Amino acid sequence: VSGGEAGALRLAELAERVDGRVEGDGGRRVRALRTLADAGPDDLAPLFAPAYREAARTSRAGALLVPREHASLTRGLEGRDLLVVDHPQHAVARILGVLHPPRAFAPGVHPTAVVGEGCSLAPGVHVGPYAVIGDGSRLAGGAVVEALAVVGRGCVVGEGARLHPHAVLYDGTVLGPRAEIHSGAVVGGDGFGYATRGGVHHKVPQVGRAVLGEDVEVGANSTIDRGALGDTVIGPGSKIDNLVQVGHNVTTGRGVLLCGQSGIAGSTTLGDHVVLGGQAGAGDHRRVGDRAQVAASSAVLTDVAADTKVAGTPAIDIRAWRRQTALLRRLETMSRRLKAVEKALAATETADDEEEEPR
Amino acid sequence: VSGGEAGALRLAELAERVDGRVEGDGGRRVRALRTLADAGPDDLAPLFAPAYREAARTSRAGALLVPREHASLTRGLEGRDLLVVDHPQHAVARILGVLHPPRAFAPGVHPTAVVGEGCSLAPGVHVGPYAVIGDGSRLAGGAVVEALAVVGRGCVVGEGARLHPHAVLYDGTVLGPRAEIHSGAVVGGDGFGYATRGGVHHKVPQVGRAVLGEDVEVGANSTIDRGALGDTVIGPGSKIDNLVQVGHNVTTGRGVLLCGQSGIAGSTTLGDHVVLGGQAGAGDHRRVGDRAQVAASSAVLTDVAADTKVAGTPAIDIRAWRRQTALLRRLETMSRRLKAVEKALAATETADDEEEEPR
Amino acid sequence: VSGGEAGALRLAELAERVDGRVEGDGGRRVRALRTLADAGPDDLAPLFAPAYREAARTSRAGALLVPREHASLTRGLEGRDLLVVDHPQHAVARILGVLHPPRAFAPGVHPTAVVGEGCSLAPGVHVGPYAVIGDGSRLAGGAVVEALAVVGRGCVVGEGARLHPHAVLYDGTVLGPRAEIHSGAVVGGDGFGYATRGGVHHKVPQVGRAVLGEDVEVGANSTIDRGALGDTVIGPGSKIDNLVQVGHNVTTGRGVLLCGQSGIAGSTTLGDHVVLGGQAGAGDHRRVGDRAQVAASSAVLTDVAADTKVAGTPAIDIRAWRRQTALLRRLETMSRRLKAVEKALAATETADDEEEEPR
Repeated sequence: VSGGEAGALRLAELAERVDGRVEGDGGRRVRALRTLADAGPDDLAPLFAPAYREAARTSRAGALLVPREHASLTRGLEGRDLLVVDHPQHAVARILGVLHPPRAFAPGVHPTAVVGEGCSLAPGVHVGPYAVIGDGSRLAGGAVVEALAVVGRGCVVGEGARLHPHAVLYDGTVLGPRAEIHSGAVVGGDGFGYATRGGVHHKVPQVGRAVLGEDVEVGANSTIDRGALGDTVIGPGSKIDNLVQVGHNVTTGRGVLLCGQSGIAGSTTLGDHVVLGGQAGAGDHRRVGDRAQVAASSAVLTDVAADTKVAGTPAIDIRAWRRQTALLRRLETMSRRLKAVEKALAATETADDEEEEPR
Repeated sequence: VSGGEAGALRLAELAERVDGRVEGDGGRRVRALRTLADAGPDDLAPLFAPAYREAARTSRAGALLVPREHASLTRGLEGRDLLVVDHPQHAVARILGVLHPPRAFAPGVHPTAVVGEGCSLAPGVHVGPYAVIGDGSRLAGGAVVEALAVVGRGCVVGEGARLHPHAVLYDGTVLGPRAEIHSGAVVGGDGFGYATRGGVHHKVPQVGRAVLGEDVEVGANSTIDRGALGDTVIGPGSKIDNLVQVGHNVTTGRGVLLCGQSGIAGSTTLGDHVVLGGQAGAGDHRRVGDRAQVAASSAVLTDVAADTKVAGTPAIDIRAWRRQTALLRRLETMSRRLKAVEKALAATETADDEEEEPR
Repeated sequence: VSGGEAGALRLAELAERVDGRVEGDGGRRVRALRTLADAGPDDLAPLFAPAYREAARTSRAGALLVPREHASLTRGLEGRDLLVVDHPQHAVARILGVLHPPRAFAPGVHPTAVVGEGCSLAPGVHVGPYAVIGDGSRLAGGAVVEALAVVGRGCVVGEGARLHPHAVLYDGTVLGPRAEIHSGAVVGGDGFGYATRGGVHHKVPQVGRAVLGEDVEVGANSTIDRGALGDTVIGPGSKIDNLVQVGHNVTTGRGVLLCGQSGIAGSTTLGDHVVLGGQAGAGDHRRVGDRAQVAASSAVLTDVAADTKVAGTPAIDIRAWRRQTALLRRLETMSRRLKAVEKALAATETADDEEEEPR
C-alpha cells in the first residue's frame, strides 16, 4: 500500500478485527499477509482454492487464511495455525487494511508549497513540498495534497480526500470526501469541443466543472474532462483505473467500475454499478443502464439496457457475440460447404437437363 | 474555461459582439451561458432543438439563445428575451469567449522558476512557480508556462502559446504561436526505436524533433514523440484530445482532429482535416488522405484514400463495414439456412437415387 | 536524443567505432546523421533501399551510410564518400550513439531537491531541481533523477538508471541498472483491486511492489502497477512504449516489447521476447508464451502458445484471422449466393413436384 508500514498483531486480535476465528494458536504473531510463495514464519498466507494446496504444503507461512469450509483444502496441513473467515476476498481487504494501514500524513503545509489568495485550509490538512494551490480553493479536514500536486483555482477538496504526487485538478473541480486521485491523473481538463467553420476549428470554451462524489478513486494518468456547459459527474463510490478517459458532460451513477484504458465520449450517461472492461469504449450521447457490463476491448455505439452484458464492436448481447465469434471460426468451413452445395446443385441441374434430353 | 471569470453584459452588447440580434429587452444583463436546467435569471441558455422546448418552458433562464428559424421552438415562450444567431454552435463558442474570457496571466517570472542559461524570454511572458526551463530555450511574447511545467533545452515556445501545469516539452521541441499543451502532455519524448540483435534491443537514439504548428491544441496526458532522424510534424490548427499517442516521424496536415485515446504509429502521414475517432488507431508507414475519417475503435492497417470514411479492424469503407456488421448478426441464420439447404439437397439426391432404382 | 549534443568526427574514426569501412575520403568530417532530405555537407545520410536512390542523387549529404552490398544502390553516385556497414539498423543506433551522445548529467543534488530521511545517495548521482525523494530510498552510482521527478519511500534506483522530469515511482519500487523512465510515467501505483459487498467496492490495499529489471525502458505516461500481494515484475531489457498499462502482478520475461497504448490486465504472464502491438490488450490471468506476437489492436482472451502470432478480438492464429478477414469481405457475396442456392433448390423441388404430377 502506498506508504503503509506493516504492523504486528496476535492472530486472535486480527481474527477479532476481521470477524474471523482462529483454529490453532491465537497467540501467534503475524506481521504481514503474503502469498504462499513469499510468506515466512511471521506471515499469514491465503489458501482459498484446491489449486494452491501443494503450494501451501511447501509454504513457510506461519499461518493460513482459509474460508469457512476448508476441510478439503487443509487436509494434510494439520498443525498449521488457521484464520478462518466467511468472505475471503473481503477479509483480505480488511486484513491488509489492519496490517498495512494507509500512510498517515502529518498535518501541516510544507514551506515550499504555494497557496493562493483566499484559500481555506481546514485544520489537519497536509500539503506537501512544491504543491501549488490556486486562489479561492477549499481543503476540508484531513485532505492530503502530496508533493508537486496541483489544485487549480476555486476547487473543493473534500474531507480526507487525497491527491498523490503530480495529480492535477483544473480550476473549479470538486472532489467528494475520501476521493483519491493518483499520480498524473488530470481532473477537470478542457473537453474536446470545437465549432468548425471553413475548415477552422474554433474552440468552444469549456465552462462546466468536474464533480467527483465521495469515495471515488481515479487511477494514474487518467483524465476526466470538465463539462462544456453543465458538469461532468462521477457518482459516489465509483472506481476508475489507470489511463481512462472520461469526456465532457459524462454522468455516472454510484459504484461504477471503469477498467484500464477504457474511455467514454461526451455526454454519455452510465447508470449505477456499470462496468467497463479494459480498453472498452462508449460513444457519445449514449445511455448505459444500471448494472450493465461492457466486455474488455468492446465498443458501445448504441444504448445498452440495464442488467445486460454486451461485447464486440459494435457491442451486442454477449451471448450473441460469443455465438458470432464461434461462427466466425467456422466461416471458412461454411464457405467451403456453400461451394459444395452450389456444385452439387449445378450437377443436379445438369443431370436434370441431361434427363430431359432423352424425353 | 480554465480560469475564466464570467463577465456581465447587456444582451444588446453581446448580440453586437457575436453578430446576432435581440428580440425583446436588449438592456437585460447576462452573466453566463448555462444549460436550460442550470440557468438563472442572469443567464442565457441555448434552445436549438424541439426536444428541449419543455425544458425551456420550465427553465429560469433570463434569456434564450436561439437560431434564426426559431418560430416552432419558441411557440408558447413569448415574452422571453431572445438572442437570435445564424450559426448556433459557432455563436456558443463566441459567447463563451466573451462571457468567460480566458484567464489572463500577469507577465513575469515566478521567483521559484528555474530558467537555464542562454534562454531568451520575450517581454510579457508568464512563467509560474516551480516551472523549469532548459538552457537555450526561447519564449516568444505572451507565452505562458504554468506551474511545474517543463520546457527542455533548446525549445521554442511561440507567441501566446501556453503550457498548463505539468506539461513537458523534451529538448528541441518547437511550439507554434498560440499552441496549447494541457497538463501531463509530453511533447518530444523519445520514439519507440530499437535495433534488435541476438535478442537484445539496442536503443536507436531519437535525434529528430517534435514541431507543432500554430493553434495546435494537445489534450491532457497525450504523448507526441520526437522524430527518429527527421521531425514529427503536427499541422497548424490541429486539435488533439486526451491520452492520444503520436509516434515518431508522423506528419499531419492542417486542422486534423485526433479524438481521445487514438494512436498513430511511426512515420504515418495524415492529410489535411483528417479525423480519427476515439480509440482509433493507424499503423506505421501508412498514408491517410485529406478529409478522410476513421471511425471510433477502428484500426487503419492500409492506406486510406482522401474523402473516404472507414471503419472496422482492419478499417474498410464504412458502408461496407456497416453491411458486414449487419450480416454478422445474421450469421447464425445463414448457418442454419446453409444446413437446411444441405439437408434438402441430400434429400433430393437420395430421392434421385431412389428414382433411379425403379428404372 | 534527449539532450545529446552533436559531436564531429572524421569518417575514418567513425568507421572504426562502428565496425564499418570507408570508401572515399576517410578524412571527411561528419557532425550528424540526418535523412537524405535534411542532410548537409557536414552530415552523413543513410541509403539502404533503392527507393531512396533518387533522393540520394539530389541530397546535399557529405557522406552516405550504405550496406555492404551497395553496388546497385550507389550506381551513378560515384565520387560520394561512403561509410559501409554490415548491419545497417544496428549501425544507425551506434552512429547516433557516437554523434549524439546521451546527455551527461553533472553529479550533485540540486539545492531545491527534497531528499527524505535515511536515504542513501551514491557518489555521482544527479538529482535535479524540485525532485522529491522519499525516506529510506537508495540511489546507486550514476543514477539520474531529473527535475520534478518523484521517488517514493523505500525505493531502489539502480546504477545509471534515469528518471525523466515528472516521472513518478510509488513507495517501494525497484529499478534495475540503466532502467529509464520517461516523463509522466507512473511506476508502482496501486492495482485495481476491490472486494465488492452489497454494491460497495472496498479497496484491497495493494502491498506488493513493482520491480523492473536492468535496461528496462518505460515510455511517457505509461503506468505499471505494483503487485497486490506479490510483485509486478518486468524482465531485463524489456521496452515499454508510451501510454501502456501494466496491471498488478503481471510478470514478463526478458526483452519484451509493449507498443504504444497496449495494456495487460492483472496477473498475466508474458514469456521472453513477447511483442504486443499498438493498442493490443491481454486479459487477466493469461499466459503468453516465449516469442509470441500479438498484432496491433488485438485482444488476447485465452492463453497464447510460444512462437505463435495472433490477431483479432478475441485473438486467434494470425493466418486464420487473415483468412477470416478476407472471408468477411465476401460475406455479402456469400449471403447472395446462399439466397441463390435456396431459390434454385426451391425451383428444383417445385420442378420435382411438377414432374410428379404427370406420372
